[in-house]
Parts: sequence; C-alpha cells; structure tokens
Amino acid sequence: MRDLLDIDDSLKAVQGELAAYLGRVVGRFDAALESDLLAVQRLTRHVERYRGKMLRPALVALSAGAASGDLAGDLAAVLRGPMGPGLEIVGAVCEMVHMATLVHDDVLDEADTRRRGQTVNAMSGNETAVILGDYFIAGAYHLCSTLDEQASALRVARASMVVCGGELLQLDRRDDLSLDVATYMAIIDRKTAELIATACELGATRAGGSPAAVAALEAYGRRIGAAFQVRDDLLDLTGREEVVGKSVGRDARKGKLTLPVIHHLAASPPAERAHSLALALRAAREDEGDAPAQLRQRLDATGSVEHAQRTAEAIVADAQRQLQDLPDTPSRRALLAMAGAVVDRAF
Amino acid sequence: MRDLLDIDDSLKAVQGELAAYLGRVVGRFDAALESDLLAVQRLTRHVERYRGKMLRPALVALSAGAASGDLAGDLAAVLRGPMGPGLEIVGAVCEMVHMATLVHDDVLDEADTRRRGQTVNAMSGNETAVILGDYFIAGAYHLCSTLDEQASALRVARASMVVCGGELLQLDRRDDLSLDVATYMAIIDRKTAELIATACELGATRAGGSPAAVAALEAYGRRIGAAFQVRDDLLDLTGREEVVGKSVGRDARKGKLTLPVIHHLAASPPAERAHSLALALRAAREDEGDAPAQLRQRLDATGSVEHAQRTAEAIVADAQRQLQDLPDTPSRRALLAMAGAVVDRAF
Repeated sequence: MRDLLDIDDSLKAVQGELAAYLGRVVGRFDAALESDLLAVQRLTRHVERYRGKMLRPALVALSAGAASGDLAGDLAAVLRGPMGPGLEIVGAVCEMVHMATLVHDDVLDEADTRRRGQTVNAMSGNETAVILGDYFIAGAYHLCSTLDEQASALRVARASMVVCGGELLQLDRRDDLSLDVATYMAIIDRKTAELIATACELGATRAGGSPAAVAALEAYGRRIGAAFQVRDDLLDLTGREEVVGKSVGRDARKGKLTLPVIHHLAASPPAERAHSLALALRAAREDEGDAPAQLRQRLDATGSVEHAQRTAEAIVADAQRQLQDLPDTPSRRALLAMAGAVVDRAF
Repeated sequence: MRDLLDIDDSLKAVQGELAAYLGRVVGRFDAALESDLLAVQRLTRHVERYRGKMLRPALVALSAGAASGDLAGDLAAVLRGPMGPGLEIVGAVCEMVHMATLVHDDVLDEADTRRRGQTVNAMSGNETAVILGDYFIAGAYHLCSTLDEQASALRVARASMVVCGGELLQLDRRDDLSLDVATYMAIIDRKTAELIATACELGATRAGGSPAAVAALEAYGRRIGAAFQVRDDLLDLTGREEVVGKSVGRDARKGKLTLPVIHHLAASPPAERAHSLALALRAAREDEGDAPAQLRQRLDATGSVEHAQRTAEAIVADAQRQLQDLPDTPSRRALLAMAGAVVDRAF
C-alpha cells in the first residue's frame, strides 16, 4: 500500500517540509478546538484519530509552493516565510470543515467504523455526533476569522454551502435509478471536489500566484477531488472493510447510485436492465443478503467497475494537464505524483 | 397572547422602525441562502416558516439604538444610517445560526412539529435535516464574511462553539438525576444565553457604544437568554402543543432535567425523593404513560413549577437592572418591555 505522500526520492525534501508544515497545522487545529468542558475534550480527542492523509492541508501547501513560481523550489521559504502562518490556518480550516463533514456523514450513513475506530455516532449517539460536527464547523470559522482578510472565510463558507448543496442533491436523488452520469458528476463536483479545489485555490492565492496559476491549481484540485470520489465510491463497492478502514457498502445500502452502477444500467441490453434494476433496488434496500454480490457479478459482465476505474484515471490525467504551464518546481512534481496516487490507493 | 414586540403605545415608532428593519433582515437572509438547486430551494422555503419573533435581530437593532445614546431616540437614524447594512447583516447572521440550531435540535429531539408545521426531519428525514442545518451555518458565515471587519465573525463563531459546548454538556449529563442548579444554569447560559448576548453585544458595538454600554447590553442579553430558556423549559413541561406551536414534553423524553425537576428533587424530603427519582426516571424513559402527569403533581406539591417561574422573573428583573445607567431612549424602553414579555409568554 502506498501512502498519498509516499512519492519518489527526488521529492524527499518536499516531503520533509510538508510533514513539518502538517505538524504545525495539527497544532493549530487542536488549539482551535480547545474547550474548558471535559465532555468536549473527550470527543475532540477521539476524532483526532480520524486524521489521515491530511490531503487538503497538503494541497494548500503544495499549491502555495507551485504558485509561488520559485524555480529553486524552496517550499521551505514559502511555508516558513511571512505567509506561513496564514497557510497553516487555511490548511487547518479546510481540514476542520472536512472533518465536520466526516462526522456528519457517519451519522447519515449510520456507519460504525472510521479509520479502524468507532464513529462518534456509534460511540456517543447521533445527537452528540451532530453537535460535535457543528462544533468543528464553528471552530473552523472561528479560526478562519483570525486571518487578516475576509476573502478566505468567504471562499470557505461558499465552498461549504456548495458541499451541502451537493449532499442535499444526492439525498434528493436517493433510490432514483434514472440518475445519469452528468448528475452523478455534478453531485461529486459539489460534495467532494469543491472543498479540495478551494484548498488549492487558497494556497495558490495566499502565495501570491498569478490569476492563471491560481486558476490552474483550482482546476487541478477540482479534478483530483472528482477522481478521489470516483475511486472512493469504487472502494465502497469493491473494497473490504479491513483494508479500507471504514464501513463499506454504504452507498448501496443508502440508495446512492455510483458510477459503476450507472454505467452498468446504461450498458445493459433492455431485457437485462429490468433485472439489474430490480437487483440494484434490492441491494439498495439491504433486505437481500446476496443482492450486492449478484450485482457485482453483473457489473463485471458489463465491465462497469473497470470503466469507473478508467474514468478516474482519465480525470487524474486531466488534472495533471492543468499544471502543464506552471514552472517545474518540486511542489508541482509533488502535485503530479499525488494525483497519480489518488487512483492507485486501496484505502 | 402577547407578542414579544407587542409593547405599549409610546413605543409605536420604535415598533414601526423595527418592523422595517426586520423586513430588510429577511431580505438579506433569503438572498444569502439562495441556491441554483431546486432541492435546496424547496427546503429553505419550508424552513422560512420557522421564522417567528426574530428575537435576535430585534435585539441587534434595539441594542444599537440603546448604545448609540441618542436621547432623541431616533432609532431610524441608526438603522437607516451608514451602519444600517452592517446591522442588518449581523441580525440575519444571528437569526441564521439560531435557525440552524432549531433544525438540528429537532433532529436530536426527534420532534415532528415546529411553529405548527412539520419539522425538516419529519418531512425529509434526519439526513436532510442535518445537512440543511449545515447549509444554514455555512450561509451564516458566508454572509458574516461580507462585513468589512472580522471581529463580528470571530464573535459569532466563538458563540457557536460555546452553544455547541452547552449542548454537548447537556447530552453528557442526560439521565443524570444528580444534576444541580449550577450545572443547569451553566448549560442554558451556553446553549441559549450566549447567542442572545452576542446579538446585543454586536448591535451595541456596531453602533459605536461605549465599553460600559456594550457590557451592559451584553449582560442584559445574557440574562434574558437565560430567562427565556427557563420559561421555554417550563412550557415544555406544562404547555400544550396547540398553544406552544411545537412538540412539548421533549425534555422529559430525552432525559433532560430542567429547573422545576431539579428544584423538586432538592426540596423533597429524603423518603419522598426516591419515589420522585423513580418517577422522573420513568418519565424520562417514556415507557410509562402516566409518569409525566404524576411527576407534574409532585412538582406542584413542592411548588417547583412556581419556583421556576419566579426564578425566570428574577432573572428578567436582573436583566432590566443592567440597563439602568443607559440614557432613557425609546430603544432602551423597548428592551425593558421585551424583557418583561419573555416571562409572560405562553408560546
């Protein structure tokens, strides 16, 4: 298994600098959520375990490095210079907003496992999980409001509204077997890609990147966000909980149609489609133990899992193309490598 | 029934000015939540019906009027002057944060009625209600970030963190029959009084109030917030759904001890307390149909409902005293009248 940041040797310096930055982000993250209440301390400490790859803060930092256009590639100068504290705050804010959505998503999905630990809802009930997510959101905006400008807060809040819109659209189309690829893509663009694109944009903007560089990095983030979600949906369908580290099979159970299923329904001959539809419906309703396995067989027959994986890879290639006009810095190379890792990951 | 703002005739001008201001707040509120998604539009329109007294924006406006120290009492000058737009934004932000907590509270309380209409969770499920609440929170911070300074956003976000802390503390102490008055007061200070105090403080601050005036109005708001919650808890215990307009009996069902019950347990002779405890526990568990009625009888025997009402009135008198050094403007008189209305209300 490769970590998202386990990239080739020439990037060792970037990796070290990034790790130090992420450590500082964690410090700001924890400080921002401090509370005088024991009940709150206990919960925030538990959720710290959800912290994984820290993809969003890493993208803030590398986008700043890539946009600064420093050919010597001294990421350290960007991250440790005068714009460093702001980049740490923006990174922590994006991670906190993301963590809040994880906590709330686990309530929605009735999930009991996250990063190999218990979810908040499984441990302390849905009520506590809802309010804890709210606490993280409030903490994120509190931290964001300590910046010396409002543009970042405005961007993060707008992104959060878009993310919620995507989730509401998805809920609205639940169990809707006529969902098409365009709508699926619109949903994941909002619910996942928006915040990742925002992380890239904010990093690039704070580093004083040119409008073209900021736009390129935003476009890169939007695409790897989409690829990440397609891959995530695939893992939910085909992965095993021990490897993925969180509850799998959530999508089918919650009536969420994902790319392989949409592709399969479109690719099936009319006579077959009715059967697949019935199977998908049964898999979605969770009342037929073997429906998911049967559905998986049918998906393989139309090459739909393979198609979804190829789609994710094509989106990643498109993400990488967005960076072609940026100077060839170590930060840019790291971003290219990270994009590749998104579709390789098994967790 | 009196409306919170249905105050005596000499305040008609204030009332008219306030109504116009609240209309502008509603305009900003709705504009801030606009979405291109039909699914989102449908939900935000439904929640508009929850809008009731708009206590928080009203307090923003009147605190601004009272803090400006304009003896002629020209609230219009304050609300329509250069600081007007900022006051409208702050009012809409406080209302939006409050509305988000209502939507999430209804999920936590499994309530199905709010302002005589269906709750979002009853209508569209818990998932949609959780995300819609998140959408309101994001909308609030987005709107707040359009101000020309960060102090207000910082204050609102801090208040939201405190509110969540209060809710988490309350959840942590659920079914805890040893809960004392001090902890109950600490919970309602956080979960209810904090945001109301913030509304007063922000209004006073934006109107350029002196530090003493800002502190007085913040203290006033904190107290009427506490009195409001004590009264709300009483209505939950003694009110009828047709009058209150929302589900009642929530607190007992969710194992939340409120002031009358806490007072009763403390006032009961030791031999009686065990029986009351058992009854409170049964009432809390909802598995005994007549336990709430029996508990109510016992509460009356120790004068505990009366005690809670008198406590609310004492807090209101304390709130009114906080305003004694402010100039005698129509805004101040309106605030004094509003404080009185808090403990009179039956809904």
